[in-house]
Amino acid sequence: MKNRLWIMLIVAVLAIGGILTAYGTDSSAFGNGKDKNRYSNNGKVKNVIVLIGDGMGPSFTTAYRYMNDDPSTPKMESTVFDNYFVGNAVTNPEDSEENVTDSAAAATAMSGAIKTYNGAIAVDNDKKSVRTVLEAAKEKGMATGLVSTSQVNHATPAAFGTHNESRNNYNEIADDYFDDKLNGQPKVDVLLGGGTDYFKRDERDLTEEFQKAGYNYVTNKEDLKANDSKNLLGLFAPVGLPKAIDREDSTPSLEDMTSEALEQLNKEKDGFFLMVEGSQIDWAAHANDAVGSMSEMDDLAKAFETVIEFAKKDKHTQVVLTADHSTGGFSIGRDGDYNMYPEAIKAAERTPEFMAEEIMNGANAEDVLHQYSTLSFTDEEIASVEEAAETEDFDNVYSAISEVFNKRAGIGFTTGGHTGVDVPVYAYGPKSEVFSGLIDNTDIAKNVFKFINK
Amino acid sequence: MKNRLWIMLIVAVLAIGGILTAYGTDSSAFGNGKDKNRYSNNGKVKNVIVLIGDGMGPSFTTAYRYMNDDPSTPKMESTVFDNYFVGNAVTNPEDSEENVTDSAAAATAMSGAIKTYNGAIAVDNDKKSVRTVLEAAKEKGMATGLVSTSQVNHATPAAFGTHNESRNNYNEIADDYFDDKLNGQPKVDVLLGGGTDYFKRDERDLTEEFQKAGYNYVTNKEDLKANDSKNLLGLFAPVGLPKAIDREDSTPSLEDMTSEALEQLNKEKDGFFLMVEGSQIDWAAHANDAVGSMSEMDDLAKAFETVIEFAKKDKHTQVVLTADHSTGGFSIGRDGDYNMYPEAIKAAERTPEFMAEEIMNGANAEDVLHQYSTLSFTDEEIASVEEAAETEDFDNVYSAISEVFNKRAGIGFTTGGHTGVDVPVYAYGPKSEVFSGLIDNTDIAKNVFKFINK
Repeated sequence: MKNRLWIMLIVAVLAIGGILTAYGTDSSAFGNGKDKNRYSNNGKVKNVIVLIGDGMGPSFTTAYRYMNDDPSTPKMESTVFDNYFVGNAVTNPEDSEENVTDSAAAATAMSGAIKTYNGAIAVDNDKKSVRTVLEAAKEKGMATGLVSTSQVNHATPAAFGTHNESRNNYNEIADDYFDDKLNGQPKVDVLLGGGTDYFKRDERDLTEEFQKAGYNYVTNKEDLKANDSKNLLGLFAPVGLPKAIDREDSTPSLEDMTSEALEQLNKEKDGFFLMVEGSQIDWAAHANDAVGSMSEMDDLAKAFETVIEFAKKDKHTQVVLTADHSTGGFSIGRDGDYNMYPEAIKAAERTPEFMAEEIMNGANAEDVLHQYSTLSFTDEEIASVEEAAETEDFDNVYSAISEVFNKRAGIGFTTGGHTGVDVPVYAYGPKSEVFSGLIDNTDIAKNVFKFINK
Repeated sequence: MKNRLWIMLIVAVLAIGGILTAYGTDSSAFGNGKDKNRYSNNGKVKNVIVLIGDGMGPSFTTAYRYMNDDPSTPKMESTVFDNYFVGNAVTNPEDSEENVTDSAAAATAMSGAIKTYNGAIAVDNDKKSVRTVLEAAKEKGMATGLVSTSQVNHATPAAFGTHNESRNNYNEIADDYFDDKLNGQPKVDVLLGGGTDYFKRDERDLTEEFQKAGYNYVTNKEDLKANDSKNLLGLFAPVGLPKAIDREDSTPSLEDMTSEALEQLNKEKDGFFLMVEGSQIDWAAHANDAVGSMSEMDDLAKAFETVIEFAKKDKHTQVVLTADHSTGGFSIGRDGDYNMYPEAIKAAERTPEFMAEEIMNGANAEDVLHQYSTLSFTDEEIASVEEAAETEDFDNVYSAISEVFNKRAGIGFTTGGHTGVDVPVYAYGPKSEVFSGLIDNTDIAKNVFKFINK
């Protein structure tokens, strides 16, 4: 009798397992968001990693696929993101003046689970602070980290680790990282990005205060890699980091910072919360610079790969990647042509921004174009940059160079601001299904709170 | 013993049911593609309905949400589409010249499960015909239907019901609907849309041939609604139908045509295959006309609602809705403003195309603008249309009027062609999960073939 009971139970479990496996596999060319490891570990989440591609709307993730296409094969190869796609997120803010979100309102939606006004850093429409997922994690004894290629007091990381009525109060936000303590300690254990301009000011040196509170402070890749402290402040640029293809060897990549954050945060037996932002996909798109945006997509893709590798080994980590909004009205194809030409973007060895700086510093426009790109420029293209150089206005030069590459690449733009299109969501880990289908950006935080309050 | 065996089996079934239910519900503001009815009926599919929003990229479906927002509430209301969102589709063709798809290659992917060249109507890269899901359905004894607001011999419906090496061979394609028979009968039982210019030609009158073969032939809404024949040809315009907001009462909506198709096709006890296309979202977007595109989104939304209602009642119908590609580089927000202004689009009572025709027919530009819109136009706006009118070029006038509404609405465009961005996928029915996550457009056909060959 008892034996038969056990046999029946085993049959039932096998049947259930079969159904779950059926859900977890498919015949698509893409991972279909149904990687069979996704539902491993019976849904137990120890660590949570939220990645945000700032400005990374659907045209950016699709363009990144075009960028990674192997032209020698008829099919278009999938990207590291594609295998983990689970759905889209709605991004609109609740702002009395604007119905397309900024990064602050969107980050507050993803950190605090509320809709708020553009510019709000983890505060609601009444400018009252809302508890963030990072704070909830810290309260539960988890380790916490924020990593970005912007200054760490920029809107997205700020809305996870601080509170302010305006994203523009950069000094107040930097101070808040140190002053707004939990149990007598700063809330963020690992804080990596740019921002020495705000953390080392004439009237206050937060880097010294963090060191006195037990943090290791690093400013270059070598020291970052040598770090052995669980409390770590790394600031690698005065404001934002240089874009990936413009970086010197001493500046870490988003992947370098993410790896170090994972190593330190993973020392905490109660798990960790980490937010990683590819911040400058958006910045380049604001400037309508497709080369810069694709450089930053690549930076994020490498960090995402490292995160997925970690999560696959760990088996207790829930990963979710999304964008806060799209930027620039970036389109694959422009002016009637049914083509994107990735090789034009790959031909740039530095961003148009870097090239424009060289020209503003006195270099000859034509020389700069040839020095930092393998394209054969037309006389007309060179003339367009030379004319811009004559205005001695950096923005004009940056725009002119960007437009040369955009036209060659078949990439169009409609705005220097954001756009309202729904953004893609990617997930890996035991609870990925909660992010599938169409979600609201506040659902990111709602679900992370659930993981933390398990 | 035997009783206990049954008890254990019931427990196992309940446990499995519990897990499936858990998959089917969520706490999101949106349906999350997880409507609990989706997995009803244990996956048995009798009828298949594929809906295609031509050109309906992610910015269009998001903009349609902005259009349907109730400004008196702080939240943004969801659309009829949102509840059924399940993922995105990749659309690139396999074409030696172009890597952004046209409607023909994309429709062939969705009808024939193959990647092919732009312009191909259900033929492969060697110009060999490929069997379509509609043909497979007919071979299995199912009823078949094609409904569009374009001429029915336009690329999308053509790639389901005919074969041709070029989408531009409109007359050959129209002939093929009659000539390429299966078991001595045309393959498409219900064929509704525009196209009398191609079906009633000097040298051949296909409408007569269809009638001799037993088809009822109708040309207006009244006769469409009075139809009682399972074999039905309805052509309601010389080429494409007027756009939804421009239609006379005698012209059916996409919903009218879809309802009639469902009524006739559902008489077949062996089930049916139906393709419904909202064809002119794309046409308006090619002309960078946001008013026209939103008019056509609304036409498609109403047809989709009717289809969902049918499927919910029927319980044996699998519905999938997607786009073939995006068009125009349509963006929500432009020129640095973080806003879309739906009220500017709602203010148009006819499309800019309709207004431009009136002006070309001699009407005064300012009068036309006031007659067909509730906007208060600036002198500058009126002058821009008057200047265009002086060129006596229809395209100029249409563009000028469109641009007035686009600017007011905060909608930008980058191209008169298509763009490569991944497109949204919506599903309802017993097998919706096979369309979830990131799929290739060929997966639409691959899955429909599976349903048909069940």
